[in-house]
Amino acid sequence: MNKVHNFSAGPAILPEATIASSVKALQNFSGTGLSILEVSHRSPQFVEVMDRAVHATKEIFSLPEQYEVLFLQGGASTQFLMVAYNLLNKKASYLDTGSWSTKAIKEAKLFGDVQTVASSKSKNFNFIPKDFDVAEDADYFHCTSNNTIFGTQIHHFPSSTVPMVCDMSSDILSREIRADDFGLIYAGAQKNMGPAGVTMVIVDKSLLGRVNRTIPTMMDYNTHISKGSMFNTPPVFSVFATLQTLEWVLQNGGLKEMEKKNFQKADCLYKEIDNNDLFEGTAKKQDRSNMNATFVLKDESLNDKFLKACKEAKISGIKGHRSVGGFRASMYNAMEINSVHALINVMQTFN
Amino acid sequence: MNKVHNFSAGPAILPEATIASSVKALQNFSGTGLSILEVSHRSPQFVEVMDRAVHATKEIFSLPEQYEVLFLQGGASTQFLMVAYNLLNKKASYLDTGSWSTKAIKEAKLFGDVQTVASSKSKNFNFIPKDFDVAEDADYFHCTSNNTIFGTQIHHFPSSTVPMVCDMSSDILSREIRADDFGLIYAGAQKNMGPAGVTMVIVDKSLLGRVNRTIPTMMDYNTHISKGSMFNTPPVFSVFATLQTLEWVLQNGGLKEMEKKNFQKADCLYKEIDNNDLFEGTAKKQDRSNMNATFVLKDESLNDKFLKACKEAKISGIKGHRSVGGFRASMYNAMEINSVHALINVMQTFN
Repeated sequence: MNKVHNFSAGPAILPEATIASSVKALQNFSGTGLSILEVSHRSPQFVEVMDRAVHATKEIFSLPEQYEVLFLQGGASTQFLMVAYNLLNKKASYLDTGSWSTKAIKEAKLFGDVQTVASSKSKNFNFIPKDFDVAEDADYFHCTSNNTIFGTQIHHFPSSTVPMVCDMSSDILSREIRADDFGLIYAGAQKNMGPAGVTMVIVDKSLLGRVNRTIPTMMDYNTHISKGSMFNTPPVFSVFATLQTLEWVLQNGGLKEMEKKNFQKADCLYKEIDNNDLFEGTAKKQDRSNMNATFVLKDESLNDKFLKACKEAKISGIKGHRSVGGFRASMYNAMEINSVHALINVMQTFN
Repeated sequence: MNKVHNFSAGPAILPEATIASSVKALQNFSGTGLSILEVSHRSPQFVEVMDRAVHATKEIFSLPEQYEVLFLQGGASTQFLMVAYNLLNKKASYLDTGSWSTKAIKEAKLFGDVQTVASSKSKNFNFIPKDFDVAEDADYFHCTSNNTIFGTQIHHFPSSTVPMVCDMSSDILSREIRADDFGLIYAGAQKNMGPAGVTMVIVDKSLLGRVNRTIPTMMDYNTHISKGSMFNTPPVFSVFATLQTLEWVLQNGGLKEMEKKNFQKADCLYKEIDNNDLFEGTAKKQDRSNMNATFVLKDESLNDKFLKACKEAKISGIKGHRSVGGFRASMYNAMEINSVHALINVMQTFN
């Protein structure tokens, strides 16, 4: 029990199986006698990795035929741009629920008329706005499913008459979703899926090719679709490690089981936050994230003492983001409930 | 001596020290008790990795003060776009020496008037054009230092009155260069520097901020300069592994020693190609690459037999690119001369 309890918001905890397979591949990848860092992305062994990653994603999300799965570089921040480049012809609607939404809105404005349908900014993004209208003539509606910094999560996606685009960077693979509710989903891998350096995009290809602009080659989803994410050299190792996590999800009951475990972990911790007089949660209860629980000490002067107690209990990555303060416990798929219990134990014995 | 001789064009052979350190970091990164795949990029341990990577690059290239070093995502293919976004105001001059130059030219045309000063396309890019004029009013002159596919290399960079931008993806770190001859250098890591998934950019910052357009956030070099390549989550593991190679270069005599060894390896192999009646080189002798030697069997019907003989000698990645045919031996920094001797031995005993 010497293991560190890794509550980091991202890059974050990954399944032990992902790490173990990655170590093996670094030493001898798929019987090639070479490290995975040294093999051509055109080698049959890596082509198989990419194929398996695409197929595992299709299986996990039960993707309908018209959806394509891509593994790209550049993070969600590049997707803020690519989404607008590829889909924004005249007008788009965005829901503003935190720093990442705000950045996505900023980029989209370079390409057309952007309507912010609602924002929780005035309350430091501590809730998810629910009453808003999406323009029926918008090219798409964009939202962020989970707000790592502010500890909020969309538990019921709005019904949208226009295609819904969703940044799922911090809760992808954490719960069941209906893929066909979405026109495009993107997610940086480094929170719940794999190492930093690869971004998953799931796109209904019927939405592409409708804008009236020339899209630079690397910004065009069709470039990457036509070459199976191998137009240029993909981030080989990050794709390999992501595949290990995708297969781990499948082997451990898929999204249904992930959701169940994630709910249990979050429920335990939120109960402690609510019952412990020293602490309070920062997000509105009904919008609390099952991935990132944000909370503060009512007496802030105890912050350093609490961080020290956490450190002594081998709890890492618990310090809150500067824009919220206090603490943040990120409990991604790979975290076992015993780590949450370890944190609760510190909270209960703290004074 | 059971090791595979890895002649892959990229991703390609890396120093054993890079692989060994990477394995260790995957198991326990810098005493954190966590895998490098699971640690925050804001952790002091990773911030130190990024700092060291920047400083090692500055030391290797003896960079003057005004140069910034960035580690980005998206490969050279994204740099084709970023270079033009950031530097092309009205007109740029490009030298066309192969597939990658051609792609760079295509992207630049989206942003302004692009003059192709010379091209070796009519000879299937088997030489480097030398007599050409760069417009004095061009915003920059762009060239590709080494053409992996065609086995050519610029041995004497042209003198340019406008800033020179160079794609050094396949020969970065392989030889001495005068950094201040260049306004901007970029290189995907996966040939001579590290794993796929990270791209090094060295830029004279005085060239930035001169164009009359709004640059999207992620496409703007100044975004990444202002945040020390951490505007968004960097490709943590790829940067770590690249740092290992950069420090290996420093520990092994720097660029001077790399150049010497690379010349020796290439010289050995080209002598065999020229002296062996069965083979001939495809690139014009004076422009031959010291990184990638391209050659063919005069009797093409023997191709499969030669590949089989290579495989039996544990020589991997020797098949030529489809646009040239025949064979290609990539001999990056980490390749020891004994691997070249192994290939020469197969060539000498082949019939």
